[in-house]
Amino acid sequence: MQEITSLINEELRGGKVNKKETAMRLRPLINKDTIALAQTDPVVGDIEYNFNKAKIYIEWANELKLAAVVFPELFLMGYPVYDIIDRYPSIVQKNIEYLEKLAKLSGKTKVLIGFCEFNRFYIGKRYFNSVAVLADKKIEKIIRKTLLPVYSEFNDARYFQTPEFNPKDRIVQIGSSRAGIVICEENWADKDFFDKPVYSFDPVEEIVKSQNPDFIINCSSSPTRAKKEQLLNNMLSFVSKKHSTPIVYVNQVGAIDNTSFSGSSRCYNNAGEIIARAKSFEEQFFMLQIPAKLPSKGGINQIFSLPSGLEQSLNEQKAFSLDYGPDLERTYLTITISIKDYFAKNGFKRAAIGVSGGLDSSVCTVLLADALGAKNVYAISMPSKITSDESKNDAEELCKNLGVNFLEIPIKEMVEISKNTFSDAFNKIENHWDGRYEKPLTMDNIQARSRAVILWGISNEFKSVIPIATSDKSELYMGYATINGDMSGGFAPIADVTKTKLFALARWLNSNRPQKDAIPRNIINKRPGAELAIDEKTGKPLLAEDALMPYEFLDEIIWRIENLHQTKEEMLKEWFLYEHKNQITNKQKSEWIDKFYARVQTALFKWSIMPPSPIVDSRSINKTEYNQPITSKLKFY
Amino acid sequence: MQEITSLINEELRGGKVNKKETAMRLRPLINKDTIALAQTDPVVGDIEYNFNKAKIYIEWANELKLAAVVFPELFLMGYPVYDIIDRYPSIVQKNIEYLEKLAKLSGKTKVLIGFCEFNRFYIGKRYFNSVAVLADKKIEKIIRKTLLPVYSEFNDARYFQTPEFNPKDRIVQIGSSRAGIVICEENWADKDFFDKPVYSFDPVEEIVKSQNPDFIINCSSSPTRAKKEQLLNNMLSFVSKKHSTPIVYVNQVGAIDNTSFSGSSRCYNNAGEIIARAKSFEEQFFMLQIPAKLPSKGGINQIFSLPSGLEQSLNEQKAFSLDYGPDLERTYLTITISIKDYFAKNGFKRAAIGVSGGLDSSVCTVLLADALGAKNVYAISMPSKITSDESKNDAEELCKNLGVNFLEIPIKEMVEISKNTFSDAFNKIENHWDGRYEKPLTMDNIQARSRAVILWGISNEFKSVIPIATSDKSELYMGYATINGDMSGGFAPIADVTKTKLFALARWLNSNRPQKDAIPRNIINKRPGAELAIDEKTGKPLLAEDALMPYEFLDEIIWRIENLHQTKEEMLKEWFLYEHKNQITNKQKSEWIDKFYARVQTALFKWSIMPPSPIVDSRSINKTEYNQPITSKLKFY
Repeated sequence: MQEITSLINEELRGGKVNKKETAMRLRPLINKDTIALAQTDPVVGDIEYNFNKAKIYIEWANELKLAAVVFPELFLMGYPVYDIIDRYPSIVQKNIEYLEKLAKLSGKTKVLIGFCEFNRFYIGKRYFNSVAVLADKKIEKIIRKTLLPVYSEFNDARYFQTPEFNPKDRIVQIGSSRAGIVICEENWADKDFFDKPVYSFDPVEEIVKSQNPDFIINCSSSPTRAKKEQLLNNMLSFVSKKHSTPIVYVNQVGAIDNTSFSGSSRCYNNAGEIIARAKSFEEQFFMLQIPAKLPSKGGINQIFSLPSGLEQSLNEQKAFSLDYGPDLERTYLTITISIKDYFAKNGFKRAAIGVSGGLDSSVCTVLLADALGAKNVYAISMPSKITSDESKNDAEELCKNLGVNFLEIPIKEMVEISKNTFSDAFNKIENHWDGRYEKPLTMDNIQARSRAVILWGISNEFKSVIPIATSDKSELYMGYATINGDMSGGFAPIADVTKTKLFALARWLNSNRPQKDAIPRNIINKRPGAELAIDEKTGKPLLAEDALMPYEFLDEIIWRIENLHQTKEEMLKEWFLYEHKNQITNKQKSEWIDKFYARVQTALFKWSIMPPSPIVDSRSINKTEYNQPITSKLKFY
Repeated sequence: MQEITSLINEELRGGKVNKKETAMRLRPLINKDTIALAQTDPVVGDIEYNFNKAKIYIEWANELKLAAVVFPELFLMGYPVYDIIDRYPSIVQKNIEYLEKLAKLSGKTKVLIGFCEFNRFYIGKRYFNSVAVLADKKIEKIIRKTLLPVYSEFNDARYFQTPEFNPKDRIVQIGSSRAGIVICEENWADKDFFDKPVYSFDPVEEIVKSQNPDFIINCSSSPTRAKKEQLLNNMLSFVSKKHSTPIVYVNQVGAIDNTSFSGSSRCYNNAGEIIARAKSFEEQFFMLQIPAKLPSKGGINQIFSLPSGLEQSLNEQKAFSLDYGPDLERTYLTITISIKDYFAKNGFKRAAIGVSGGLDSSVCTVLLADALGAKNVYAISMPSKITSDESKNDAEELCKNLGVNFLEIPIKEMVEISKNTFSDAFNKIENHWDGRYEKPLTMDNIQARSRAVILWGISNEFKSVIPIATSDKSELYMGYATINGDMSGGFAPIADVTKTKLFALARWLNSNRPQKDAIPRNIINKRPGAELAIDEKTGKPLLAEDALMPYEFLDEIIWRIENLHQTKEEMLKEWFLYEHKNQITNKQKSEWIDKFYARVQTALFKWSIMPPSPIVDSRSINKTEYNQPITSKLKFY
């Protein structure tokens, strides 16, 4: 069946495809109760692009004489839409026009597709988040989303009106079955599954109780996040079993800015067992049999595997752990699909990255090479006086291993001139201003800023190039990143990956990529340091953990705050993983936690000007997922 | 009465104040129906700070034996709160503890104060947006906000649960009157006033119909925006008259990041006439008589004036106009209070700004001098090869006029070294990468980036310094701003002021500040240009309007899109103001509009990494007010 997806992709690239021949050959596998899930990747606001993609999927479904083809939530508009629909209502007008064009393509094969509908009623928000059922060249029915999430990256209630709900209106005849249609969040309101439900009303329950449908179809655009696959699986399995009603779930795939979608569309039978699942992180024309009660597995129904590790960890993580295994392939796929989609959808194809021989820039370079192709990556080594030969060599070896373009541009002269310019100026300023720092970070930062000047210069000189920001999540929490320096770029691949996880990811990459050990072991084994300043005690470049605190301890603070919302007092009462291996005093522990809070307070501004970066963890400091005033006195404890 | 506010401010600064003596003297002016509106400026999450401020206001109200003292919405927590209450619930716990402390301070004088309440019910969001009524050392009553806005800068439904509404619960006895209490948005749901109401239910109407209160109290934290004063006045006047019920409106003052509040608390009688109004853009302990039906003006009730111009323009602007008069003082006050609060609340006191002799940096320098004091501003002239002597002289004259610190730091050498470093590197890169631009912006941008390196360097070397981003709204729309250059800084004062308005503001500053003509006329009279490149045609520095389009035309496109949501086709059908004075072909008009859309598409990334900046206009591109995906294909028309 994968054949059809390949042919669709060929046609999307402009190739000519003869559908008839393939369809004829495949039709014996298909009966009147076969449907297709169009697991697709839209572009927000590019109605023509989304229309053309939908058209090809619909043509295939027609050709195969399927009962229906089902698209994700808001597919025709693209999701997440944000405020552009309020500012440019003409885009919504256009999605309506193209919906009507799609309707004309429909025949016996029904089409379920998400779109943005004008609210023609007197009261409320301007739009509805709707799914249209298209059949016989007409819009047969429109279904409007009633549960409108506003939390994390969700802003539905910002644009969409809550409609009246009538379970009768949710029933659509598909093949020989009566399907009950829900839209994304409407499946997430089960009062037995959730300890503290957000919604007082459960659309699935209402539909099942009053209409007894043969199965539920859920049209979703549900972003991927750490632990979300586990939650989704448990929830859909629970709900289908509880109501003894199969659920077909179709999900968007791909990425928009910070938000990514894994696809992984699937079907559960009425015993809560998964009987079909599409691929993850890929578009797919995925066919399955309309689930009768307790259907057997097999036949046309396929179960593609999830990213490795996920199947084995279908429960929430209750304690901080350095075993990132269950999350590494998903992390890798989330970041690489985000890079691919961000570059391609915005008309870029190449990346310029500064390589220091450190962990952050090394992992970023591997991810870029995999997402864009090695030849589309230019790795620039920009040594200063402080840079060690070892670091230079490690960086060069990494690039040789990967086959990415490599160039050394020493920054000594740029730094020297800035230094000279500054020293005279600062002395003059001191005549009028007090408060000159005794140990300023000025010289450290000039190095990082000179490097960014070079990377942005390359993007100004050559077409289609994005410079890369290499900051990681642990260091962003600590504000250990230079404004207009290493945190500057057009995209930040690892801004939601903590340092201890990054070590694990580096090892995983070395073992799991076709090319083994691309990252020199030295890079993984040495202790991280920015090589911007010399440690007065050792005479060597200052190590990050000496400037901050042990990463293992730091990452556990982050984990406890993001996941358990613990206060300092609560954290002091518990054993950290780090404490099992290292003897530390309570005073030391308390100082590190205080340092954490103090540094976070000054890091907030930096978070607000970060470039787009893939949200990876359940909770993040990504501004798409977590809103935060800069001006605040967080007396966190 | 202003005396009390002064004494409160003295006490807040740590001074000793004898309340008794003053209170005794003022008490003859006060009767059992006098209340105070505590028009105050909180810090988000700094519960102790907010508590201490509330305490002093309450002590004064007690001492004066007032009937009540009324605080803004969410005052104890600070507003806007954003996601910190979800991530750090301990802050909410703390605001509850301090609410209980405040209750203990209350006696016969009732206290109405906004706070964040835990939702103890089984279902829904974690919190309520509530107002507590404190009396006799107890919490007498809690009122929960039912209309939870999510649009523009509002995110209430993200955190707060919609409670049950019972009009009976809204009545509080204050002095000899029964007051009906509503919270902010609950006053904005009148179906006769709004053409298309957002809400299906109007709490004010329900309270009036079922409880017939003597007057309404509205506790608000309602941000200031262009035209909002007019809308607010018309709406409150309409509603009080319609229900023949006076309304007392108390509002927050001050700024948090991008959002600012004008205060301007006030009272309307039941004929819809304003009978008392507090100051704008200042904290105030504002006393008034509980409004009986149709009270006469005067007595203790004072009407402080609004920013100039607003009173004369109480209707919405229907067409684009260069007459910015009615908005200039409000714009000035919005920006200066935003600078003041951002610096003070975040522990900064000084600004470093690059002065070019152009309009943007000149206006910013004046605003900074007024907000922070001239001695706290360091203006750095950073001429390159292209900078004209005229520009240098204009910049220096401006700084001399203002008395701000001035220093010239030429960047020729920094630029030269970067150029040399680049030219070799680019040639090497060209061996592996095609697509080198014929006319790259690299050299233009190096100048802007070198300047930012200097400004950030100053902030690294000296304590409490924020570098300033000088980009204006027109140029940000066009992406006519350099990443890590002029658009980089810790604060961007004029990012929501269009160029034509900036000219008007410069003239207004020259006429209305105590010191006349601080901005040299030459700066206002010359045509703007970035002085980063030479125009090949003229041999002189390239003018912005030649690179872009006439600002007057550009600003009208912006106005039409933000306010009327017009498409290209619609704009082509209408006369632009520019066309009344200049003959242009339809082809020219069409090209400019196309250029606008094309440049906006590439500017979206820049908007996403802008530093905090005061929202000034009704609509903006500020990310607090307007969410936008970068990855999008906006086929705007």
